[in-house]
Amino acid sequence: MDYKAESLKKHAEWRGKLEVISRVSVATKEELSLAYTPGVAQPCLAIRDDINKSFELTRRWNTVAVVTDGTAVLGLGDIGPEAGMPVMEGKCVLFKEFGGVDAFPICIRSKDVDEIVNTVRLISGSFGGINLEDIAAPRCFEIERRLKEVCDIPIFHDDQHGTAIVTLAALINALKITGKNPGDIKLLINGPGAAGIATGRLLAKYGVKNIIYLNRRGALYPGAPGLNSEQEMIARQSNPAGEKGTLREVIAGADVFIGVSAPNMVDADMVRSMNKSPVVFAMANPDPEILPDAALAAGAAVVGTGRSDFPNQINNVLAFPGVFRGVLDARARDISDGMKLAAAYAVAAQVGDTQLRPGCVIPSPFDRNVVPAVASAVARAARDEGLA
Amino acid sequence: MDYKAESLKKHAEWRGKLEVISRVSVATKEELSLAYTPGVAQPCLAIRDDINKSFELTRRWNTVAVVTDGTAVLGLGDIGPEAGMPVMEGKCVLFKEFGGVDAFPICIRSKDVDEIVNTVRLISGSFGGINLEDIAAPRCFEIERRLKEVCDIPIFHDDQHGTAIVTLAALINALKITGKNPGDIKLLINGPGAAGIATGRLLAKYGVKNIIYLNRRGALYPGAPGLNSEQEMIARQSNPAGEKGTLREVIAGADVFIGVSAPNMVDADMVRSMNKSPVVFAMANPDPEILPDAALAAGAAVVGTGRSDFPNQINNVLAFPGVFRGVLDARARDISDGMKLAAAYAVAAQVGDTQLRPGCVIPSPFDRNVVPAVASAVARAARDEGLA
Repeated sequence: MDYKAESLKKHAEWRGKLEVISRVSVATKEELSLAYTPGVAQPCLAIRDDINKSFELTRRWNTVAVVTDGTAVLGLGDIGPEAGMPVMEGKCVLFKEFGGVDAFPICIRSKDVDEIVNTVRLISGSFGGINLEDIAAPRCFEIERRLKEVCDIPIFHDDQHGTAIVTLAALINALKITGKNPGDIKLLINGPGAAGIATGRLLAKYGVKNIIYLNRRGALYPGAPGLNSEQEMIARQSNPAGEKGTLREVIAGADVFIGVSAPNMVDADMVRSMNKSPVVFAMANPDPEILPDAALAAGAAVVGTGRSDFPNQINNVLAFPGVFRGVLDARARDISDGMKLAAAYAVAAQVGDTQLRPGCVIPSPFDRNVVPAVASAVARAARDEGLA
Repeated sequence: MDYKAESLKKHAEWRGKLEVISRVSVATKEELSLAYTPGVAQPCLAIRDDINKSFELTRRWNTVAVVTDGTAVLGLGDIGPEAGMPVMEGKCVLFKEFGGVDAFPICIRSKDVDEIVNTVRLISGSFGGINLEDIAAPRCFEIERRLKEVCDIPIFHDDQHGTAIVTLAALINALKITGKNPGDIKLLINGPGAAGIATGRLLAKYGVKNIIYLNRRGALYPGAPGLNSEQEMIARQSNPAGEKGTLREVIAGADVFIGVSAPNMVDADMVRSMNKSPVVFAMANPDPEILPDAALAAGAAVVGTGRSDFPNQINNVLAFPGVFRGVLDARARDISDGMKLAAAYAVAAQVGDTQLRPGCVIPSPFDRNVVPAVASAVARAARDEGLA
């Protein structure tokens, strides 16, 4: 199917993928007097007296804003806030259909960090959580960091942490198959943007010690040319052996390659140069860094991509609906590294020992057991850490 | 029924009166590929190339933000943005149930005009219209005025214009009954807040020449003590005879009393002092300026209130769902005085000549013919004025 042409046609038919509906009837005077004036004054006063009641007497407890500035939409780049809306509506659909979350898209007409932070802060009382989406790096890091400081509800940049959680889940299972320990492996992350950096950080928390980030010039190291502030920061925290060189040079001897970069960055020779039983997660969309067949033919033990038509689809939808379901259920104030790790373990555990094989290190996005497992793991971690 | 106690109980059961649902299925890979990646890229690009397409390919065409800062919620005053949420959710319910509009509540954590204007401006690309709600006067006037300048979608402060439209509708029919012309009457507006001032302005457009606004001290005139900037402005545009004095003094000889003030401001003697066949719209909620029985006993020809348990309920729900339905259907850029007048005429016309009587100058809020009539009148007016 030509998904793009068909999707455009469908979108014109749908005229919007979301709808806001009423959960109450207002068909009689009595019903109107309960749902609206004069009765509604009482829940208002109850919240005025205890703001926590806004999580009991309104929909806030189940409502998440999906916020973008439209600057990094899919692989399309800076297409503007309104043009990002079809993706945001789609994300909200996934929130609802997979996680039972009421998600509403907010597209912000600004690329200014202060304006974006201030706008989200000022509307945050309407929501139980904020999912940041498709905001360009490195701005996305500062926006998330500052929002976490000024908001009293959880903030989650899915392009970062959703990818990180699902990639870690796949890696946990891939390492089981290859029999390696996270502390012993050399792991490359090609593409030091939002997803790559957040993935590296979560993998480090998981216990991977030798992580090397690469951009188009090659391995990052402190003081490498052309780094933004976030890249400079992670350059200091990674690459303990101080390796320099191009991807082709640095990939030699690596155990794991994680690509969040561009099509065809990796060839068979590069896979062959990796350590034995190499793991290749080639997640560039829609065209991966190397096609699974080619990677497997060159000796890869486990291959994953972002695509639904190959095995091992490393797809954020395995993470964000369950993460927010758990956060909202627990009324967590924040989403910590511990909660993200718990989410990754829960996703990984959904592939049972009997199912685990090179072509199945991650559950299907349509596996209905994933969200409840992730939600309960995240809620438990939040409680354990005193964040709920 | 004790509406307040029962409403609190119901709100705790409902846990929110709104829900965001999906209009599309994402149960298979194919459906996911159309509603989300990779297919969704195509509608995104179509909007990037023509921003108008956001009204065709997303829900924007039918979506309105209900925005408050929580400073003038019902008669409860400044109870805070979160505490205003039960009212905003209720308003959104009415938008959906009466007008088919997808309305979403946004409570802003600021009382600063600049911050509120900027926040609404920055999120306005997500919506087809903005309904301002329960924002204290006189700030509400400046916020609306500035938003109308900086936004390319319609802005409507319902406390002002919804009240104005419905009051005018009732007045049109009341004047038919009393056989008076708008240009000849003396009309008092007691309570120069958001609703009172907007009502006076719309009545002036309708043709009422002698309008006198009153606050607790009495009639407004230029330079009267204690006026805010908006009241000073309307003082200059009203009270052509320069009347001064208390309500008790100024009401003598008046043809119409419109109260948007406080309970029990008017007594029988004051009604008796009015011109023959006086009209009394005592709209203070929940307790009117004078009870209908008392006003009628004192000689009032037509009496209206805001209450559902008396005849002639002057209720905004007769206006805002139809106004926005029409505005969205026509994709109007603005809501002009002409469109508001058209809405008022349409509401008034729903009371047919055979139904028209002193106890029926305004349709029931549950009359299902009102919204389509208002919507089509508003859309037509928008097109006639070149605003759509």
